[in-house]
Amino acid sequence: MTARATRPLIVVSNRGPVTYERDENGVRVARRGGGGLATALRGVADSANVTWIASAISDEDREVAAEGGADSRVVLLAHDPAAYEQYYNVIANPLLWFIQHSLWGLATRPDIDPPVHRAWADGSVRVNRAFADAVVAKLDDSPSAAVFFHDYHLYLAPRFVREARPDALLAHFVHTPWPADWSVLPPAWRHAIRDGVLANDVVAFHTRRWADAFCAGGETGSTLVTHHPISIDVAEFDGLSNSPPVLEREAELIASRPEKLILRVDRTDPSKNAVRGFRAFGLFLQDHPEWHGRVSMLALLDPSRQSIPEYVEYLAAVERTAGELNSRFGQSGWLPVDLRVADDFHRSVAAYKQYDVLLVNAVYDGLNLVAKEAPLVNARAGVLVLSENAGAHEELAEWAISINPFDIAGQAEALYRALTMDEAERSARATAIRDHVRAHDVSAWLAALLADFERVSRNVRS
Amino acid sequence: MTARATRPLIVVSNRGPVTYERDENGVRVARRGGGGLATALRGVADSANVTWIASAISDEDREVAAEGGADSRVVLLAHDPAAYEQYYNVIANPLLWFIQHSLWGLATRPDIDPPVHRAWADGSVRVNRAFADAVVAKLDDSPSAAVFFHDYHLYLAPRFVREARPDALLAHFVHTPWPADWSVLPPAWRHAIRDGVLANDVVAFHTRRWADAFCAGGETGSTLVTHHPISIDVAEFDGLSNSPPVLEREAELIASRPEKLILRVDRTDPSKNAVRGFRAFGLFLQDHPEWHGRVSMLALLDPSRQSIPEYVEYLAAVERTAGELNSRFGQSGWLPVDLRVADDFHRSVAAYKQYDVLLVNAVYDGLNLVAKEAPLVNARAGVLVLSENAGAHEELAEWAISINPFDIAGQAEALYRALTMDEAERSARATAIRDHVRAHDVSAWLAALLADFERVSRNVRS
Repeated sequence: MTARATRPLIVVSNRGPVTYERDENGVRVARRGGGGLATALRGVADSANVTWIASAISDEDREVAAEGGADSRVVLLAHDPAAYEQYYNVIANPLLWFIQHSLWGLATRPDIDPPVHRAWADGSVRVNRAFADAVVAKLDDSPSAAVFFHDYHLYLAPRFVREARPDALLAHFVHTPWPADWSVLPPAWRHAIRDGVLANDVVAFHTRRWADAFCAGGETGSTLVTHHPISIDVAEFDGLSNSPPVLEREAELIASRPEKLILRVDRTDPSKNAVRGFRAFGLFLQDHPEWHGRVSMLALLDPSRQSIPEYVEYLAAVERTAGELNSRFGQSGWLPVDLRVADDFHRSVAAYKQYDVLLVNAVYDGLNLVAKEAPLVNARAGVLVLSENAGAHEELAEWAISINPFDIAGQAEALYRALTMDEAERSARATAIRDHVRAHDVSAWLAALLADFERVSRNVRS
Repeated sequence: MTARATRPLIVVSNRGPVTYERDENGVRVARRGGGGLATALRGVADSANVTWIASAISDEDREVAAEGGADSRVVLLAHDPAAYEQYYNVIANPLLWFIQHSLWGLATRPDIDPPVHRAWADGSVRVNRAFADAVVAKLDDSPSAAVFFHDYHLYLAPRFVREARPDALLAHFVHTPWPADWSVLPPAWRHAIRDGVLANDVVAFHTRRWADAFCAGGETGSTLVTHHPISIDVAEFDGLSNSPPVLEREAELIASRPEKLILRVDRTDPSKNAVRGFRAFGLFLQDHPEWHGRVSMLALLDPSRQSIPEYVEYLAAVERTAGELNSRFGQSGWLPVDLRVADDFHRSVAAYKQYDVLLVNAVYDGLNLVAKEAPLVNARAGVLVLSENAGAHEELAEWAISINPFDIAGQAEALYRALTMDEAERSARATAIRDHVRAHDVSAWLAALLADFERVSRNVRS
């Protein structure tokens, strides 16, 4: 991927493109940051014209920040630990994440009580202010730079930057869904969020659906509200899929796999809906004994946000439900659900190549990159079963089997339909998805956004 | 109230204006139906031009239905009990009710599994078909009648009637909120609901907010989408407030009341938000020891839908939270929270007269009639503390203290502000609400709707 950022670009996100650690010999090493955003923007970050401002996450990151940075293109902010905890683990996750994915059971949660009020004021406002200060300092070095904010952690920062630099070119990409109703938050907070986002010249979402919901929420003034679905680095996945660690894991998988493999790859986030996916598979097995022993569901789940009680509870439910299915249906030599709770991206890519059915049944999902990554490298004309509430559905529905994430019976039928689909149809659908992803990769996404920035810049400042 | 239904009117709702019982002597007696709808439409039901079609609820209702009815103006439908159970206790409550009040915690509930699919097909579709058949039969007697459907139980019936009687004048009042996002339901179901509602010539909501959300959900074709907030029968409440049973209960209340009384009157529905209201009062007591012993919260809660597990759990949480507050703050001679779980409307009206602060903090509420009933008869210039998510907020916000229903800290502050508001301001606000309700009573609501019917009738059929 080549980034065409001729104009300097300041990328601002909570997690950066690298995080630092000490290896066993005590030597500092830079590790690539986790998360889809860092992956997607890696090509950008390698450009000489890009500076990235992010939070110091690891202890070593904080050391690097204290030393004034290890890489001139990355600014790591060492926030006050208590403020960061409030900003990240009280307000951003779970409060905003749960609102944006419609996960709260509003009869009982959330309670916006005094500790949450303090987290907003002493955490979110303060950390966003620190990000804004760092952006303003960087703009002093590079006044023509475009500032590119990312995601739900940083809704307040653009307004702080705008107040200090009225002429700066500011853009924000929201990677989550945008719900129609924000009334879960006190009026002052939701107004601050909207006002912060509208301090940008460009606000971008993955889909028309989220962009429309944003626009329906009120006036958008002079801000350009646009939508461009993020994508993946095709060359990177082509390379990965033939890399030794992936081939090694693929060989293990081939040696143990059943006739048909249903795959899911997710974080253990309640929004990803693993429990209902297992229940749907159980319903399928109940209705189709002819498939017993012939098909398994491989669930590769990356443990996520285990400092938040809701996530701990959800992971326990995931494990319990998988165990129940295995107790009920399992036989010697056949494990219906093969649940692996681990962070092993190479295993995920190996499984991407081997699935017959890929299940993406998210409750809500801003986009869902698995729905693009896995079909790209799959070698078995696998069928994509895709939630209508995943952003990727707006692009891929034509070639996927659509499901409603709450409809367990419908998901069970979709699994059956996918498993029994004839080879010609499977192949045609799989090829179409692969072609689409190749033609709409992450560089196309970035180019479209940068074009929006320039368009707005011309309109506003000429 | 006088109804001006010169055109015959067929009112269709799940609960009718009367329900039948046997008294201690085995004599059949007609009791007035419960619920706000029956109360609001009582004046209409008394008109000679009105027929009411409703479900037989009690055993005696079923007897009456089997005998062909006891009142020529009321048609009671004795549904198959299993179908009614599915229609009412699986689909309408909790599924649709929880969707429309945004109560589901979507990470884990609902599961649209095979029993729910059967409840839709064998319950909702079937019972709605029975209502439609009864409407069509009645239209044969009275072809020019307007048919006036009510609420979320009956979304499917209008389409069935429309198919049989293309020229009938059909209208639907939705008494609940209308959420922007219906994707909790499988596509076929939500399309059937929207299609059913749009089979009406007029669809009406309490507020612009719910009507706008309906319109944002897609094309509305030739259907008039309108909003008219329901109201109360002023003369009835004036009479009630001076009736012997109310005066008797008011005397008891006066004898035992503290200096200041905070009142809430609700069903024990999770949407009514009693638990957060208690927590807010607890926070107020924690922050304001000077008020200990001087103010109590009287919570008159009508037990609701106790055949649904979520409601049983919620009532338990209500009782637990009240008990916790009383343990923590209570003193000899002062009970901070006086929780009465009972159906005693006369006690509610007595309390309406005596409150200093009325707390209506609903998570979401189509309208909330308590916010109109209580200020009408209140004698103490009481202050209304009102959720911004209650439909009544659209009318009354100017004179109420607005709260966000999730913001416990904000509610605690609102209680303090209400309790310490000076007499002149309290009086001005209370008078304004009372004048508004008197000027916009239930007959005005009905007249506005009937005018809409005639307007549409002229446009479409002339």
